[in-house]
Amino acid sequence: MKLYVDREYASPWAMAVFVGLREKGLGFDVEVLDLAAGDQRQAGFARQSLTQRVPTLVDGDFSLSESTAILEYLDDTQAGPDLLPREPRQRARARQLQAWLRSDLGALRAERSTEVVFYRPTDKPLTAAGQAAASKLIAAATQLLDGRDYLFGTWSVADVDLAVMLNRLILNGDPVPDALKQYAARQWQRPSVQAWVQLERPPL
Amino acid sequence: MKLYVDREYASPWAMAVFVGLREKGLGFDVEVLDLAAGDQRQAGFARQSLTQRVPTLVDGDFSLSESTAILEYLDDTQAGPDLLPREPRQRARARQLQAWLRSDLGALRAERSTEVVFYRPTDKPLTAAGQAAASKLIAAATQLLDGRDYLFGTWSVADVDLAVMLNRLILNGDPVPDALKQYAARQWQRPSVQAWVQLERPPL
Ligand SMILES: [Ca+2]
Ligand SMILES: [Ca+2]
Ligand SMILES: [Ca+2]
Ligand SMILES: [Ca+2]
Repeated sequence: MKLYVDREYASPWAMAVFVGLREKGLGFDVEVLDLAAGDQRQAGFARQSLTQRVPTLVDGDFSLSESTAILEYLDDTQAGPDLLPREPRQRARARQLQAWLRSDLGALRAERSTEVVFYRPTDKPLTAAGQAAASKLIAAATQLLDGRDYLFGTWSVADVDLAVMLNRLILNGDPVPDALKQYAARQWQRPSVQAWVQLERPPL
Repeated sequence: MKLYVDREYASPWAMAVFVGLREKGLGFDVEVLDLAAGDQRQAGFARQSLTQRVPTLVDGDFSLSESTAILEYLDDTQAGPDLLPREPRQRARARQLQAWLRSDLGALRAERSTEVVFYRPTDKPLTAAGQAAASKLIAAATQLLDGRDYLFGTWSVADVDLAVMLNRLILNGDPVPDALKQYAARQWQRPSVQAWVQLERPPL
């Protein structure tokens, strides 16, 4: 298999698929696209990704974009540990979290980009909108985790998504409750996550 | 079951779940929230929706937000026709389309809000960004449909999502190829879709 990602290895959604492939124990090649240079609009890639976005997985003659679709596809077609919980209500909760983190909290994602997580912190304070999104995230994460080590009893890829979102604040020194800091730090030590974190990145 | 939606019945994601419940033949009550008045932040609803968003489905003691998670939950737990294709690669493509329509084409969604679809057209021309998003949508829809009546051989809820997105342009009189106009018009006549379209809406 082949996985297309951004050349800065900063896309949290590319990271989720990279981690999922490693957790499944699958071999894959990583291909990087220079999104700032428009690589995703070049014909060779656009033929494989209808939506011209990363991550895109190529599995033989089948190529697929959108991280949530790719992760479900891996669970549906590949052996190895489940990436999402199997019990229907837990799986539903995991999907809810994935969808929410990809479509809400826009101010937080803009003001604490993943450059904060994978390159360096920023001095800029959060705006009121950014602070409101941070508060919503912290409240939801606290309620969902409810003191557990993982969102759903054992590890799932939703833990990676949540840890990255929390680390936008934590790794920047913004205030986050200790229990969530400890949760994110534990997630960060997972070997599949460290394999992404430790990738050699080009200067910005 | 109970489904929370916006009081204008203008959320395309609430519509997708409403249509899915009807296609499954499930009985449900509709509850409307006045999002402009902040109903979604009231304690009663916030307890049921961690993310304070519509649509939210309440199924006994279980409540769930995010339309894609709800639709998968219905397929996982309820009898009746499938809302998404069962074959893994087709299901993956349907999920890709759902995820893409919910997270890309922002300029088109902003400049051709669903008020255009459910209330009235607008005179404002598309900006360059809006036109680029429209062109990307038209190219993807043409390639995905490839002359077929449905995206995946038989109806799926992804056809509703795609028809709504196309109707942001079509019902406003913006240029769209005839084949896509005919596809959207066919989808629009489906009884589950008409049940949503014909709901009595409050003035804006
Ligand atoms: Ca390049
Ligand atoms: Ca507890
Ligand atoms: Ca009200
Ligand atoms: Ca053909």
